[in-house]
Amino acid sequence: MAKARGQVDEFVAGDHPVFVGVGALAMLQRSLGQSGHGVKYFVLGDDITLAACLPELLAHVPALANAPTIEVHHGERSKDLEVCSNLWNYLVENGADRSSVLVCLGGGVITDLGGFVAGAYMRGIRSVHVPTSLMGMVDAAIGGKSAIDLAGVKNLVGLFAPPVGTYVHPPFLRTLGKRELLNGVAEMIKHGLIRDAAHWNAVRRAPLHDLDALLPLILRSAAIKAEVVTEDPRESGPRKLLNFGHTIGHALEAYTLESQKRSLLHGEAVAIGMICESWLSWRLGHFDRDKMDAVQEHLLGLYPPVVLQDTDHHRVVELMRSDKKNREGVFHFTLLTDIGAAVTDVPVTAAQASSALDHYRLLAVDARPRNRNEA
Amino acid sequence: MAKARGQVDEFVAGDHPVFVGVGALAMLQRSLGQSGHGVKYFVLGDDITLAACLPELLAHVPALANAPTIEVHHGERSKDLEVCSNLWNYLVENGADRSSVLVCLGGGVITDLGGFVAGAYMRGIRSVHVPTSLMGMVDAAIGGKSAIDLAGVKNLVGLFAPPVGTYVHPPFLRTLGKRELLNGVAEMIKHGLIRDAAHWNAVRRAPLHDLDALLPLILRSAAIKAEVVTEDPRESGPRKLLNFGHTIGHALEAYTLESQKRSLLHGEAVAIGMICESWLSWRLGHFDRDKMDAVQEHLLGLYPPVVLQDTDHHRVVELMRSDKKNREGVFHFTLLTDIGAAVTDVPVTAAQASSALDHYRLLAVDARPRNRNEA
Repeated sequence: MAKARGQVDEFVAGDHPVFVGVGALAMLQRSLGQSGHGVKYFVLGDDITLAACLPELLAHVPALANAPTIEVHHGERSKDLEVCSNLWNYLVENGADRSSVLVCLGGGVITDLGGFVAGAYMRGIRSVHVPTSLMGMVDAAIGGKSAIDLAGVKNLVGLFAPPVGTYVHPPFLRTLGKRELLNGVAEMIKHGLIRDAAHWNAVRRAPLHDLDALLPLILRSAAIKAEVVTEDPRESGPRKLLNFGHTIGHALEAYTLESQKRSLLHGEAVAIGMICESWLSWRLGHFDRDKMDAVQEHLLGLYPPVVLQDTDHHRVVELMRSDKKNREGVFHFTLLTDIGAAVTDVPVTAAQASSALDHYRLLAVDARPRNRNEA
Repeated sequence: MAKARGQVDEFVAGDHPVFVGVGALAMLQRSLGQSGHGVKYFVLGDDITLAACLPELLAHVPALANAPTIEVHHGERSKDLEVCSNLWNYLVENGADRSSVLVCLGGGVITDLGGFVAGAYMRGIRSVHVPTSLMGMVDAAIGGKSAIDLAGVKNLVGLFAPPVGTYVHPPFLRTLGKRELLNGVAEMIKHGLIRDAAHWNAVRRAPLHDLDALLPLILRSAAIKAEVVTEDPRESGPRKLLNFGHTIGHALEAYTLESQKRSLLHGEAVAIGMICESWLSWRLGHFDRDKMDAVQEHLLGLYPPVVLQDTDHHRVVELMRSDKKNREGVFHFTLLTDIGAAVTDVPVTAAQASSALDHYRLLAVDARPRNRNEA
């Protein structure tokens, strides 16, 4: 599946190639260098990625030296229709035409946003993804899904619009803090849980501060994501495996976005979602209790507990109703059957989903004071 | 290519089927009747089409009896991002999920807008096109292009998002006035000019008031559009044939939209575009002068002359620069080589385009008083 080529591993994710390794940006330079004369490039990033990563990108990819850079504010709130409108205006005012290329330099927000903007500009111009976060490298920048949020619903509007290539340059991880790294680790844990028990064990034991030790795990996670996407680029079947932790996770994320009380990173919400959904996996008879305990214990150890009230639960379940995955008024979950195996389309009632949130609340209440004492 | 089936002709336009005939809506009813239980339908239309055509649609398609209807204001200004935002909000608030279907009942504005809204809602739900204008029946609703206008540029943002089917019900033409009919005739003339001299002659001589006489011509025009789209669904080559009259036509349409002085219907702008571009076809050595004269004479006889000033020309040429068809700063036109034949990608300078507008101005100034005297 993965084929070594110098310092770059290369594999296919559905409709687009993924290049992982310290030589990835050199491959991007080679690829852009082969574009026709007169092709215009634009670099999209946020205030953080343009400051922290653009110089290194330009050092490796001189073809982008004269590309205008477009900056949006960092964070989920930039996945917004008005931001898209500004970007489309910018592109047309700066002469972007059908042959132009939008290079998305950033985490999941930037590749989701940029993929959508490029995918709909003039009915689709080319995009290139250069993920700078761990979340982007192992998940968001792979598979061609793009989206923005609307009406308080995560990813309500978007496209399957694959980039021409995703170029994963691991040294960008040095620009991340621990919270950002953990954000991506949540998806790596998910990849292990749904597909590969050995990967789950390796990620569980990985020293997060050691990027050299992380690199093979990033490669494996990116490859799992790419494998699943390749089996089902349009999410009609197997790709739903990737939704484990996300039905409740997305609703939690949307809830914290609308309540503005606190903001949860995507991976933090998915970690809570995985706790709830591993509980549902056990409760509905698919998953052993001791395995559920192991999953919960590990996730509770990594991610700070978030205590929601009963009234919050009501709204979170309501938000699940507008989730794309819930066809025709019934919730359909991806649940674990083992460490490394999952099933999709398990019907779950609103009451069961609410019980899962109750279960998490008890764990979180329990965990919070203990963490405080330890601090 | 076209295959008779009862009172319906059926053919393929790239990624989707087209059904033409008085039995088309019965086929839509049959198709919707086979959808799964719990699938939600929504009908999008404008104030005019919902009043004039919805009762007849529901009479033929009882499966839509309980479908919520969504009304936008008629006219090009509804191809707007804020309108899209309202529609996406409406859909999510009314429980539209991935299995839902958006039925677009209207002219080109409605199918362009609805195709885009459906194509991006939850990364794409199904749409059905039921064109009610001649323009929609022979052109806009066929081929899967959808778009909205932005930054004063026609169709700047959009998708290739084919409907699951286009159902052409000719009796809807009775709801149209003469100006609306002529709007669609412009595209039928274009179909003849780029592909089929016999069709050009037939359309030229057709009695517009006689819908029975028009029907076979509508069928032929829809089939030409479908043929060209099938050869090149993503507009990388032959589909550009359809751009004849549209490079200047689109810019004129955008100009009248932004100036708010008068509004030109799409077909009226394309008619002027075809006059200008048949002149360019002759001027650049591709097309005989007597054929150019015949094209111009016919179009000037059908469409009211519009006198633009030199200052307008400057802005129109500027707007051409943001046209999707103009790769890398050069204008590329589709020009006629004969009645019934055209070539794509002919480089044209801004000065030549401006001369074509000058040429039209002289014809229009000349035509205007004469028409007044005749009136």
